[in-house]
Amino acid sequence: MAKDITLFWGSGSPPCWRVMIALEEKGLQGYNHKLLSFEKQEHKSKEVLDINPRGQLPAFKHGNNIVNESYAACLYLESQFRAQGTPLMLDRPEEQALMYQRMFESQTLQQKLTDVLFYNWRVPEAERHESALQRNKEALKTELQLWEQHLQKGPYLAGKSFSLADVIGFPAIAFAFRFGLSKDRYPQLDQYYTLLKDRPSIKASWPPHWQENPQGMDTLKEF
Amino acid sequence: MAKDITLFWGSGSPPCWRVMIALEEKGLQGYNHKLLSFEKQEHKSKEVLDINPRGQLPAFKHGNNIVNESYAACLYLESQFRAQGTPLMLDRPEEQALMYQRMFESQTLQQKLTDVLFYNWRVPEAERHESALQRNKEALKTELQLWEQHLQKGPYLAGKSFSLADVIGFPAIAFAFRFGLSKDRYPQLDQYYTLLKDRPSIKASWPPHWQENPQGMDTLKEF
Repeated sequence: MAKDITLFWGSGSPPCWRVMIALEEKGLQGYNHKLLSFEKQEHKSKEVLDINPRGQLPAFKHGNNIVNESYAACLYLESQFRAQGTPLMLDRPEEQALMYQRMFESQTLQQKLTDVLFYNWRVPEAERHESALQRNKEALKTELQLWEQHLQKGPYLAGKSFSLADVIGFPAIAFAFRFGLSKDRYPQLDQYYTLLKDRPSIKASWPPHWQENPQGMDTLKEF
Repeated sequence: MAKDITLFWGSGSPPCWRVMIALEEKGLQGYNHKLLSFEKQEHKSKEVLDINPRGQLPAFKHGNNIVNESYAACLYLESQFRAQGTPLMLDRPEEQALMYQRMFESQTLQQKLTDVLFYNWRVPEAERHESALQRNKEALKTELQLWEQHLQKGPYLAGKSFSLADVIGFPAIAFAFRFGLSKDRYPQLDQYYTLLKDRPSIKASWPPHWQENPQGMDTLKEF
């Protein structure tokens, strides 16, 4: 079945990473994939645009079914391969409620990380304001503190079991540590990160340029 | 069962509206609800913060299960009340793929609408730039044209059947028309809007301040 699957991806992109973790967890190793370079603008190439008219990665196809949005691809994979690999959907109502809640709160965490870490990349020089960046930093700090509280009821994002919430949320948390988040100030986040980073699905999909250069930047050191 | 459900909501908020459409479609009329005023900052009141520490609407609770993120609440409701009301999950793989894809693309549409319609509200005066607003407008135009193409394979967002994609996507499209989007330049979007606006679940949850004042602004007239 994995032979019917094609993924175009970029190294270190949380949306791509999510889909790759889901593929690993569902036992779909051996899918077709191609690593593309954002720097070389390969995400705007014809082979990507043929699948994803937005020219974004991931570009994902299962048979003739195209599912480029990363949340969509994770939900679709769990639904289509429910009986295979790790069950990623929690069925008990209270666990399922928390799973869905954390899945979508992860978007806010990812957005707030992006608003700080890629501020200069996203905002043209003439439109940058120190006041805006400061506000983004404050918002990110508040968000990280919220997640530190969330994880007091761990060990996973939705409680006792690994689930779609982790498939989707882990890359954001890994991103924070890659950019120097303090393990001492965020012990729950660190414990979560440490628990998951050697999980086979996550290890197998670890961003190659993070492997080559294990030392990230320290933008979040003071957070 | 509806008596176990509590929703705090704001009029015209697409995230709140989605959850209300889902509740109607699943036959959960009679749930507890309270309309709050964003202007009066009621979303920061204790009764909201007790459910949603982010101080945002919707704040949603089913029994002891809290699911405030609107996508999460819609997915949860469909899963918990699968056999009741309208089936909102499409099961055929190709329909399900499209349903998930459109659900999450709707976020981009909503974001791009927000970036234009609420630019002045979101960006402090000293940080506003005409160049940024123009860029947001161009991005929104491109996005609307993409949706116009999407709907050539209608009548619903995921094809033949009403689904979670419509529950989630309709409020964004209604928003565009509320702000004056041209029916002539976007005939497919207009056809979709016209098909859905009188659907019972949507009529029952129509934003009260839109009912009181049916004429919206014309910000998108030239789009």
